[in-house]
Amino acid sequence: MTQHGAIVDKLVIVGVGLIGGSFALALKAASAVREIVGIGRTQSNLDDALRLGVVDRALTLESAWTHELSDADVVLFATPVGELDRLFAVSAAHFGPRTIVSDAGSTKQDVIAAARKHLRAALSRFVPAHPIAGTEHTGAGAAFATLFRDRNVVLTPTAHTDARATQRMRELWEAAGATVRELDAAQHDRIFAAVSHLPHVLAFTLVEELAQRPDAPTFFGYAASGFRDFTRIAASSPEMWRDIALANRDALLAEITAYRAHLDAMARLVEMRDASGLLAAFARASKARREWSAAREGGVPADGPREP
Amino acid sequence: MTQHGAIVDKLVIVGVGLIGGSFALALKAASAVREIVGIGRTQSNLDDALRLGVVDRALTLESAWTHELSDADVVLFATPVGELDRLFAVSAAHFGPRTIVSDAGSTKQDVIAAARKHLRAALSRFVPAHPIAGTEHTGAGAAFATLFRDRNVVLTPTAHTDARATQRMRELWEAAGATVRELDAAQHDRIFAAVSHLPHVLAFTLVEELAQRPDAPTFFGYAASGFRDFTRIAASSPEMWRDIALANRDALLAEITAYRAHLDAMARLVEMRDASGLLAAFARASKARREWSAAREGGVPADGPREP
Repeated sequence: MTQHGAIVDKLVIVGVGLIGGSFALALKAASAVREIVGIGRTQSNLDDALRLGVVDRALTLESAWTHELSDADVVLFATPVGELDRLFAVSAAHFGPRTIVSDAGSTKQDVIAAARKHLRAALSRFVPAHPIAGTEHTGAGAAFATLFRDRNVVLTPTAHTDARATQRMRELWEAAGATVRELDAAQHDRIFAAVSHLPHVLAFTLVEELAQRPDAPTFFGYAASGFRDFTRIAASSPEMWRDIALANRDALLAEITAYRAHLDAMARLVEMRDASGLLAAFARASKARREWSAAREGGVPADGPREP
Repeated sequence: MTQHGAIVDKLVIVGVGLIGGSFALALKAASAVREIVGIGRTQSNLDDALRLGVVDRALTLESAWTHELSDADVVLFATPVGELDRLFAVSAAHFGPRTIVSDAGSTKQDVIAAARKHLRAALSRFVPAHPIAGTEHTGAGAAFATLFRDRNVVLTPTAHTDARATQRMRELWEAAGATVRELDAAQHDRIFAAVSHLPHVLAFTLVEELAQRPDAPTFFGYAASGFRDFTRIAASSPEMWRDIALANRDALLAEITAYRAHLDAMARLVEMRDASGLLAAFARASKARREWSAAREGGVPADGPREP
């Protein structure tokens, strides 16, 4: 039972990093939750979380922690997606009869598959979620209450998901400042394969290809601001992106195939010295990118650089 | 003969846009030049340049302008590379016997070829140059005196270039605040094909591929900050990049071929579910990108985002 207009009484967050910690801080700032218990791998990160008021109590995954799940209103798993299968397996028997379970993974079909495999009675109260937010920092110390403000959070409930559970997660994310949208899980995975996972693979590939050249320092020495922006995501966590690439393998491979065909066509235009074809292709891209930027930033001028 | 410690008396800038205009303002701020004459396509841009004190006098390319070249110490062509062939052809007969000629193009072998074709007596005083700087804005109104501060300017003199001409251009660019480096033209074109031209083609290709899908708005609607940075250069000028892609065709095609082979290898790792291979590849890229960033920003922490 909630007090003082809180949306839920007890929230358990497994994985008190940037995402889980920021969710906690945002809900505390909104007085949307009465008590937050953090579960994590390392005591030092949990100590940070306690010291910074991110969570009220904390337990490591090495300790006896699953008893915290039985009276939890909501349990959010905010760990790398590669860990969810194991965590679902050890948690499943301990959820209370009304506990809502959710996650924060960047891929959704694989997480739903893991939930189907393990969650049993709690499966209908599992709400798959993907908050589209982040910074380059990690850990509870990097968390902040406004991380999700005006950011999209995508929920991908299945036909079997309890509508009240979905509604409760929507309320929590909205209390955290996010814009909540719903997608079919397969559509989610296709969309993010195209607009996030593929760009990461392309950027990793570019940097890795340059780095393995014997004269790599010469190339890197002349790289400027266009390179900086294009490759910024290539500095991302290798572990996280390995997990995402494998979890969303089929959609990612389909995107790579489509991209390669398009790159081949672009290369042919260069090879054939097709000036008008190149101009048309670059102009379509430039126009689309400027329109995207203008729509996203609410009319602020497009931000394409004239980098030579 | 120069006055008051100026490096040159008379500078003519053909193409008074962001680059040419900023070069003028930087040299004025450094008192490195006595008089600057701007030559340009449109009267309205030249009016801006005059009003803002970018140039002292201005003439359009439609008027009789080549007589300004005969007593110029330095003539800088800061137009798109695609226009240089024509401009060299009409200018060649008018340079004075000591006039130094230079350019600001993003590719160098093609500019040198155009110079060889047209410049005749002035060829030994032609100093090919590429300032690595820019913003998303264009025109004389966008010019500012500090654009080149701490930016690289690459000079690619040939075996036949007068060393004094090269030295004079070095002095001017250094007076403008730039760090001047020298490269062989072919090496320049290979390096920038890899670290600039290829990333532009890859970004144009990604956005164009998405934009031509029937459900493009759905994809663009979920694109976030990783996409924003990766595709920022896809908003660049289509005309400029068509010229660059064609001017540096061979080196660009070689880079696309190398990149494709690497992308194929990355796709195979995904296809084979090779977790350790993917982790190793992503880790090499992430490490190289973080080191590049740290070296570039002088010890500032790496800026790789943890974007989900």
